[in-house]
Amino acid sequence: MELFQALKTRRSVREFTGARIPAEDIREIIECGTYAPSALNAQPWHFIVVDDTSLFPDLMKIHPYISSLGSASHAIILCADKSLEHAPGNWMLDCSACIQNMLLAAHGLGYGAVWAGIYPAADRMERFSQYFKLPESVSAHSIMVVGCPKNPLPLVTDRYREEKVHLNKW
Amino acid sequence: MELFQALKTRRSVREFTGARIPAEDIREIIECGTYAPSALNAQPWHFIVVDDTSLFPDLMKIHPYISSLGSASHAIILCADKSLEHAPGNWMLDCSACIQNMLLAAHGLGYGAVWAGIYPAADRMERFSQYFKLPESVSAHSIMVVGCPKNPLPLVTDRYREEKVHLNKW
Repeated sequence: MELFQALKTRRSVREFTGARIPAEDIREIIECGTYAPSALNAQPWHFIVVDDTSLFPDLMKIHPYISSLGSASHAIILCADKSLEHAPGNWMLDCSACIQNMLLAAHGLGYGAVWAGIYPAADRMERFSQYFKLPESVSAHSIMVVGCPKNPLPLVTDRYREEKVHLNKW
Repeated sequence: MELFQALKTRRSVREFTGARIPAEDIREIIECGTYAPSALNAQPWHFIVVDDTSLFPDLMKIHPYISSLGSASHAIILCADKSLEHAPGNWMLDCSACIQNMLLAAHGLGYGAVWAGIYPAADRMERFSQYFKLPESVSAHSIMVVGCPKNPLPLVTDRYREEKVHLNKW
């Protein structure tokens, strides 16, 4: 897929066919995530790939907004190891750039995906830490639900807003 | 440019020729930013495009790590209007996805760019607020320095780390 087409046609997808995504495509999605920039190139991200669908009901219990997982193929929980940071307090930005690359990659491979936030909701972060027994220095950032889209993507709508673009001053 | 090539070859670029980027390409870069996902689709971003190079020395004074601006074409200061948020505390994630799209778009157009953080450094945020007289609800997130790259990009290095990918459990 052409870059600008990918950037402008990616949408959050929440309804899936239930079909399974091959492991090598999940690897490709994650690899694209690792090419995101990060503060002082710390690359603090870790990925928990959940392909065992018997765990999906548990995940839907500990995150309030991922009912889409019911028909999805995989969940990828994006975490950061804060002990890897060179510039503390940037891990949530690094992970956001990382998941954006992953969302684009999923779209480019013909899959659908949605970013469900874990950070900054303290209760969700705690539940994911407990469920996955995350090390002390590791925080869960987000969960990417990915699968084979059930429906065609909605048409592209123009997002550019002239009043949000300021020239040389606010 | 093909999506996966773009994702994997984008690099932070800090040396530029000084050549000017046409305004329509800056618009395209920003437009790509606006297609990023945001929490509850709040799209809280605003953009201050600085094409007046006489302001560059001021910007280099208020941000410690943008000496690259000396040979760049434009600075784009990405801000968020927190009063637009539906899910408070997500604006810094939304803006990170937005700037990642912008970095990819700049790369796809053949330009080079670097993301210099403003958030979470409180002193930098304050200096940008004062310099641009930002409204109370608006915070500066980052500055994207963009220009025509002076040198070829460094070769792609493999970023995927098996030990950072966990299957079904940490």
